[in-house]
Amino acid sequence: MTYVITFGCQDRTGIVAAIATFLADHGGTIVEAAYHTDPDTGWFFTRQEVRADSLPFGVEELRERFGEVATGLAADADWSILDTEERRRVVLLVSREGHCLYDILGRVAADELAIDVRAVIGNHTDLATITEAHGIPFHHVPFPADDKASAFDEVRRLVASHDPHAIVLARFMQILPPQLCAEWTGRALNIHHSFLPSFVGARPYHQAHRRGVKLIGATCHYVTAELDAGPIIEQDVIRVGHADSTADMVRKGRDIEKVVLSRGLRWHLENRVLVHGNKTVVF
Amino acid sequence: MTYVITFGCQDRTGIVAAIATFLADHGGTIVEAAYHTDPDTGWFFTRQEVRADSLPFGVEELRERFGEVATGLAADADWSILDTEERRRVVLLVSREGHCLYDILGRVAADELAIDVRAVIGNHTDLATITEAHGIPFHHVPFPADDKASAFDEVRRLVASHDPHAIVLARFMQILPPQLCAEWTGRALNIHHSFLPSFVGARPYHQAHRRGVKLIGATCHYVTAELDAGPIIEQDVIRVGHADSTADMVRKGRDIEKVVLSRGLRWHLENRVLVHGNKTVVF
Amino acid sequence: MTYVITFGCQDRTGIVAAIATFLADHGGTIVEAAYHTDPDTGWFFTRQEVRADSLPFGVEELRERFGEVATGLAADADWSILDTEERRRVVLLVSREGHCLYDILGRVAADELAIDVRAVIGNHTDLATITEAHGIPFHHVPFPADDKASAFDEVRRLVASHDPHAIVLARFMQILPPQLCAEWTGRALNIHHSFLPSFVGARPYHQAHRRGVKLIGATCHYVTAELDAGPIIEQDVIRVGHADSTADMVRKGRDIEKVVLSRGLRWHLENRVLVHGNKTVVF
Amino acid sequence: MTYVITFGCQDRTGIVAAIATFLADHGGTIVEAAYHTDPDTGWFFTRQEVRADSLPFGVEELRERFGEVATGLAADADWSILDTEERRRVVLLVSREGHCLYDILGRVAADELAIDVRAVIGNHTDLATITEAHGIPFHHVPFPADDKASAFDEVRRLVASHDPHAIVLARFMQILPPQLCAEWTGRALNIHHSFLPSFVGARPYHQAHRRGVKLIGATCHYVTAELDAGPIIEQDVIRVGHADSTADMVRKGRDIEKVVLSRGLRWHLENRVLVHGNKTVVF
Repeated sequence: MTYVITFGCQDRTGIVAAIATFLADHGGTIVEAAYHTDPDTGWFFTRQEVRADSLPFGVEELRERFGEVATGLAADADWSILDTEERRRVVLLVSREGHCLYDILGRVAADELAIDVRAVIGNHTDLATITEAHGIPFHHVPFPADDKASAFDEVRRLVASHDPHAIVLARFMQILPPQLCAEWTGRALNIHHSFLPSFVGARPYHQAHRRGVKLIGATCHYVTAELDAGPIIEQDVIRVGHADSTADMVRKGRDIEKVVLSRGLRWHLENRVLVHGNKTVVF
Repeated sequence: MTYVITFGCQDRTGIVAAIATFLADHGGTIVEAAYHTDPDTGWFFTRQEVRADSLPFGVEELRERFGEVATGLAADADWSILDTEERRRVVLLVSREGHCLYDILGRVAADELAIDVRAVIGNHTDLATITEAHGIPFHHVPFPADDKASAFDEVRRLVASHDPHAIVLARFMQILPPQLCAEWTGRALNIHHSFLPSFVGARPYHQAHRRGVKLIGATCHYVTAELDAGPIIEQDVIRVGHADSTADMVRKGRDIEKVVLSRGLRWHLENRVLVHGNKTVVF
Repeated sequence: MTYVITFGCQDRTGIVAAIATFLADHGGTIVEAAYHTDPDTGWFFTRQEVRADSLPFGVEELRERFGEVATGLAADADWSILDTEERRRVVLLVSREGHCLYDILGRVAADELAIDVRAVIGNHTDLATITEAHGIPFHHVPFPADDKASAFDEVRRLVASHDPHAIVLARFMQILPPQLCAEWTGRALNIHHSFLPSFVGARPYHQAHRRGVKLIGATCHYVTAELDAGPIIEQDVIRVGHADSTADMVRKGRDIEKVVLSRGLRWHLENRVLVHGNKTVVF
Repeated sequence: MTYVITFGCQDRTGIVAAIATFLADHGGTIVEAAYHTDPDTGWFFTRQEVRADSLPFGVEELRERFGEVATGLAADADWSILDTEERRRVVLLVSREGHCLYDILGRVAADELAIDVRAVIGNHTDLATITEAHGIPFHHVPFPADDKASAFDEVRRLVASHDPHAIVLARFMQILPPQLCAEWTGRALNIHHSFLPSFVGARPYHQAHRRGVKLIGATCHYVTAELDAGPIIEQDVIRVGHADSTADMVRKGRDIEKVVLSRGLRWHLENRVLVHGNKTVVF
């Protein structure tokens, strides 16, 4: 078991020394460490993973003691400590398309993602059976066109009841209201397709097909009030050609969406993704 | 709906003309067509997809009539006609690791792979629940170390009862006896990891980790009596680095295995993979 | 040596049969063939490569005879025949950045691209030495801000004097006037970077860096009057991360630009790229 | 300008603290830092890049002072300090194939690789002209089959006269004698193709073509006495298909070889590649 320390503040001399000395003084064994300073903003980021049994105290005391070091370095320091022994809670939001859900459930079943999927919430029931086959509760929240606000209230309530570390929009297909984006800041992950060049307007796959693009991409990002414009966690592409129909392109797009989302989710839950402004550092 | 014609013989002038003229004479509309001649062996391959409703007869008569054209071109011509309206039957062989099974079941549930998974056979029961949640029978066939022959007999019997178009070794982890390789020739697909350079002997991931490889690959191939040396259908790789533990490498290996196997299975079932000798042409 | 026949027209029954029968009647040996019908437009495309010595006549007579077949199939058929023995003429337009020029010259020197680079035209002289070291004339055409029209006239005259099969904008950095786009239709290739998401306005690399993108792409396309919106020949991406400075991203972008442009150029010169409307088929 | 500190020793508590405190005490600004401990060997690696003008002394004094810290941490510590202001000296060994040479020279000409190519040594003269066009001396050292030892002596002498930071075997095609491997340990980089599966014996591309592989790889590694088995710096692959002839595969192999070698060379010269045993850490 390890403790994962993440820390960010405006860069200045001595930060690494202060943190490293604090850890060394208590005999902390660093398993993995990374540092970065963003040249645009001058913000310093670090992530350090320490063997829990190398420290003479538990996570609560570590938080207390490290908090003093952190605030000593910068009053506005942005830091956290994750105890990897604590199972991470996740709530998934879905609609009809199951490729992302299957990918995540398969990883959980294989003990590859050691997380606690507390609930799956769907605005349709298509994915109830597979969810329940994994012993996970499925909540159906219909989204009537004339009363989405109430539906979002219900989703908000359900999500809040689990206090999740991650809220995954696994092809949820509903645009979150700004208030929910704010409430879930830094915890809500979305996946969407991307194209080179990008296409605005309806039916982007059809546009991409008509334009003869050779690549289809997927972007996993944190949800913000500006649609699909939040901090990017991960991106990847898959190759398509003229022989691919629009349906083939959609299918290939799904293949890349699911792996990109699962990669982003893992990194998020391992506290590998540090955000400052609208940009991520992925350690 | 379409008919997929595949045809192979020693190359000579006039093959394309004969096939195309036959189709044109009956008003056949070609949806997709591909040709290739292997320079090493001089073997000609073609795959042609024809709209079913453009022909004045059904698949049985097409087989009869095309058969005459085919044998007229070469006595030893290797040809087949697939009716895409006929749902393809698949049997999956698994052990404990579920990543390939989940990937395939997810695609089936999403109607992305329009196949009929008739049965899943496992030498362990770990994957029974997920299988049965999809309404698919799961057969547990234990493989005792001292009597694998009987176990293979049982597998053989179960497989034969479904007359499948594909037998997928989805991380089955048992080496098929030569007789079964022969009986399932051209229908049994396997997936295995690959490394650059390759590692012989036990625990290849550990060897790869110690050697500091930067890529992990996966190869989907037809099963032949020579272990992991059958005709290659598809390969792909995923990047690893020094920060990846052996466990991380195994996990990333799984990610690439599942997509490569699903790609290979789709191509196989669409009759896109033509084999001659130990080499494939993938149209 | 081979003849490469490309042909396009509105799809209907019998096209393949007519072409194949014509070739078979004259003993033509097909080395490689591909077909495609675009589902959006119903346009049929084919590319066929025939061994020159298998036909009883030369390229001129082939053009004459095939022309009859082609116009017999469709009055508005779009067809051409390339004699691969004829060395393909290429003119390169460059500015200061040499990565694409080096890549192409290296391939020519290695006999990997069997082309005749007739001239390199630059609006700066930075790349004169490397050009001339390959025995290729370098023409310096300055582009004064207040008289680009005359400069383009000079470029146009120089290019026309070589009657090239390809005009390669190898990071030329000047926007062609519409008249030149029209005159060079289907022969002028450009390369430009692409991002997911795309960035409009100045200094896209800086914007991409600030946004924390994880991939940089490159697109090779035919030049049309609408800037960077011509038919796409090839695209690829390269991975970047938070540790990459803007300069690193520019450098990695160059690596992907040069290989994508060289791939696109090869395919263009081998008549593998068939265009219909604003979309390519790459055989 | 920066100083790049690399340091490795058996892991124990307090290493990071000691180094970071040393740098902080002198006001050193860390631009980039990375740490890693290999789980197999327990060896700790770090690379730290410090702004030169943030320290009150020059590189000589830094080496002296840091040396005390380093040996204080471990008697057998493996450390070095690179002054990025010092231009890195490189000698290239070539034969007839120019793709790697062109790629490197193009980067040097574009100021993308800020290195000093002191000499190119070839056992053939094919690449003399392009070398000399860049103002770089070309040395022709013939390798007669019956006296390679003398040829290697001459190469050894020429290389030694430049005291290079990197000796690049840019498709040199001659097997170095063990003594030269030992003398150039950690400075000689080689590039070679790789296949999945790998092929032993003559003409691997022909074997790979006959086997129908779908990927061709390239591996950049340090030269050791065991042929092609030295520590791996970088690897990548390129996709091939049945339509690719052996010649196409060789050409695509070259494309991936040149970018992998150039990437490896850059990382080596930036002291990003730390070696311990037969394994690299690439920061």
